[in-house]
Amino acid sequence: MTLITGLTVHDVRFPTAAAGDGSDAINKGDYSATYVVLDTAEGTQGFGLTFTNGRGNEITCAAVRALEHHVVGHAVEDLCTAAGQRTITADVQVRWLGPEKGVVAMAAGAILNAVWDLRARLDGKPLWRLLAELPTADLVAAVDFNHITDALSPEEAAAILDGGLDGYGERLAYATEHGFPSYTTSVGWLGYDDEKVRSLTRQAVKDGFDAFKMKVGGPIEDDVRRAGIIRAEIGPAARLMMDANQVWDVGVAIANMERLVAFEPYWIEEPTHADDVLGHAAIQRALGERCKVATGEVAANRVIFKQLLQAGAIGIMQVDACRVAGVGEVLAELLLAAKFGVTVCPHAGGVGLCEYVQHLSFFDYLRVSRSMEGRMVEYVDHLHEHFTDPVRIANGRYVLPERPGYSVELRPESIAQYSFPEGPVWNA
Amino acid sequence: MTLITGLTVHDVRFPTAAAGDGSDAINKGDYSATYVVLDTAEGTQGFGLTFTNGRGNEITCAAVRALEHHVVGHAVEDLCTAAGQRTITADVQVRWLGPEKGVVAMAAGAILNAVWDLRARLDGKPLWRLLAELPTADLVAAVDFNHITDALSPEEAAAILDGGLDGYGERLAYATEHGFPSYTTSVGWLGYDDEKVRSLTRQAVKDGFDAFKMKVGGPIEDDVRRAGIIRAEIGPAARLMMDANQVWDVGVAIANMERLVAFEPYWIEEPTHADDVLGHAAIQRALGERCKVATGEVAANRVIFKQLLQAGAIGIMQVDACRVAGVGEVLAELLLAAKFGVTVCPHAGGVGLCEYVQHLSFFDYLRVSRSMEGRMVEYVDHLHEHFTDPVRIANGRYVLPERPGYSVELRPESIAQYSFPEGPVWNA
Repeated sequence: MTLITGLTVHDVRFPTAAAGDGSDAINKGDYSATYVVLDTAEGTQGFGLTFTNGRGNEITCAAVRALEHHVVGHAVEDLCTAAGQRTITADVQVRWLGPEKGVVAMAAGAILNAVWDLRARLDGKPLWRLLAELPTADLVAAVDFNHITDALSPEEAAAILDGGLDGYGERLAYATEHGFPSYTTSVGWLGYDDEKVRSLTRQAVKDGFDAFKMKVGGPIEDDVRRAGIIRAEIGPAARLMMDANQVWDVGVAIANMERLVAFEPYWIEEPTHADDVLGHAAIQRALGERCKVATGEVAANRVIFKQLLQAGAIGIMQVDACRVAGVGEVLAELLLAAKFGVTVCPHAGGVGLCEYVQHLSFFDYLRVSRSMEGRMVEYVDHLHEHFTDPVRIANGRYVLPERPGYSVELRPESIAQYSFPEGPVWNA
Repeated sequence: MTLITGLTVHDVRFPTAAAGDGSDAINKGDYSATYVVLDTAEGTQGFGLTFTNGRGNEITCAAVRALEHHVVGHAVEDLCTAAGQRTITADVQVRWLGPEKGVVAMAAGAILNAVWDLRARLDGKPLWRLLAELPTADLVAAVDFNHITDALSPEEAAAILDGGLDGYGERLAYATEHGFPSYTTSVGWLGYDDEKVRSLTRQAVKDGFDAFKMKVGGPIEDDVRRAGIIRAEIGPAARLMMDANQVWDVGVAIANMERLVAFEPYWIEEPTHADDVLGHAAIQRALGERCKVATGEVAANRVIFKQLLQAGAIGIMQVDACRVAGVGEVLAELLLAAKFGVTVCPHAGGVGLCEYVQHLSFFDYLRVSRSMEGRMVEYVDHLHEHFTDPVRIANGRYVLPERPGYSVELRPESIAQYSFPEGPVWNA
């Protein structure tokens, strides 16, 4: 057992709003991290973060501090179980502020990811390998089955994970050689003009990408024109995805997609309010086989994902690594997706999200879904230089991470430079 | 136009956890308030709060500060429109921390309720009267229809509110004479032993109550025994409600309610996770006419309520005054309930929730639902002494409030005494 002896939280913000990077129909953010560092007596540290959009990052930092007493003085191994996770997610007082959603779920995500990072470092393994090599019973013990047993039992989860042992070595060899498919979102932010979209798309094709995501949700004529530009650049065989960032009402989403399906999108992401399970189901019914509905980047917990799956509301499930309460919660979500046969394509971008989710997709392939078919990890080419173990992309594919941990350790000089409000970048 | 010139937020906590008051299957709290005071140049102030459960109240306070710039320097009248409300609920950076849920929605609730309180004080009216006397167009303009137009259009909302002008005077006279039905939750907290439950129930019957709520969600044999005690005390004609505070999984909820329906509950409240629209629908289908499903106290926004109604998941809709983004958001919810013909019985208790929701139910009766049939406002006999205009109960019914505002102004001496962490009660 390894006791956690200290927790530090940093408010780190990158001034991205001014550049138009990351602008979409609803967000214009300074990409930020609520960054958690855990200490142990023997010196190994754990690193986790939750991604925020600038203003308000101090709120998630405050939430981390409100949960700190469940972490400091407790054992890493205990916190990597569902019972340990629930000491944080079901605190009898703090739970009221969610429950299991918003700021407190995100703070739990930063903390619990740091705990799992620490465990992986103690074992000397990258997180994907730690998880993929865990006995089925240990993985099942890490899943909080509260409120999802009507969709997935511990026994069903165990069967899925046991199944993931078949052909494991073969899949590992394949992943090591070929990496994991990705797509780029860097070409089509709403803040970019048509020429920038065209030139970025052209460059991304040269870089080996064969899947591209554009933002929609502005005036529909603009969306249609930009879709035409990108489809023309990438050709008919490449995948084009669209992301509306929740800006449409259900009826508007259906009407607009009736026009946009002409450009053969693989999916439409967040076509309406993220809380609207029934709305997503109505949109998926209207689109049928023509386009998959995708959502998940702001889905707060396993109960929301359960319903999206039960309702047939999505064809693509976009788990986020730190919107939810960390690795254990994501495990529940990956297992639910496998049970319902829905494809997982994690949400990334932001700060550190690519670094995080590569581990989740490699684990999903190795031990849960056992397939790369139709699966891709989002890739956004921003801010990787601030990490000690940044993602590596080759020919438009993620390369299997090798260093121990969950890959979101920030460089000390980046923390110093971008700390808010005292860092030099905020006092120029 | 009246400009808001200042905003102050207080972290106020009452040490209720030690007494077992407010204990249920999932919460053991120190009832607390994130308390907002707004200033104007001419001296009139506005008061709003969001209720929290102790630890973490500093987080909602931080969220209020993160939204303050949308309030100070802005006009009361503008902030009482949907567009004004959205400057707060759809801030392009802070929205990421919800969206429209958890800590940031609660902070928005404290702020926007203070804005509406200020407006009512400026008009010299209690909030229920301010709302009930507003022209239909002004009420419709206060509703954020984003993401609910598939269930309720502005035109439908206007028709409901216009309908509320018919017979208005008669209903006002009735409400003035008879008040509004209530029920008490003070008899059956899980922290109380059988004898305390029995004696409190007996006293509540003497006080004129004919509706009583008990907490369930402990061991089922205990729930059955306590239900028997309360039903025996109140007799067959009185209403008994049950509240599981989300502790059951869907299958467990159905199985346990198969036993508890023997005691003829009017409703089962929060039988499972608050996010589980489909789960509530499954439970309501299983119970059919035998018992209504009720939920809402932690439903984050109008999109959740919309789905609960669309799915036929509830027979009772329990709006909360400050879990959601204030008066405008509640307006949307009351109108949705009226559209679907579902009974609204607001959530109260905590700190100031009874003071708040009496206004909502009187307004609902006068202008929206036009009925008291089956409708009751929760009443918990705790902490009213800290308010300058506390609720008044006569013969188990709420008396129509008369003083201007939304009734949650705290006494200055209570703020001083219970401020956290510096107040004397926290330094004894």
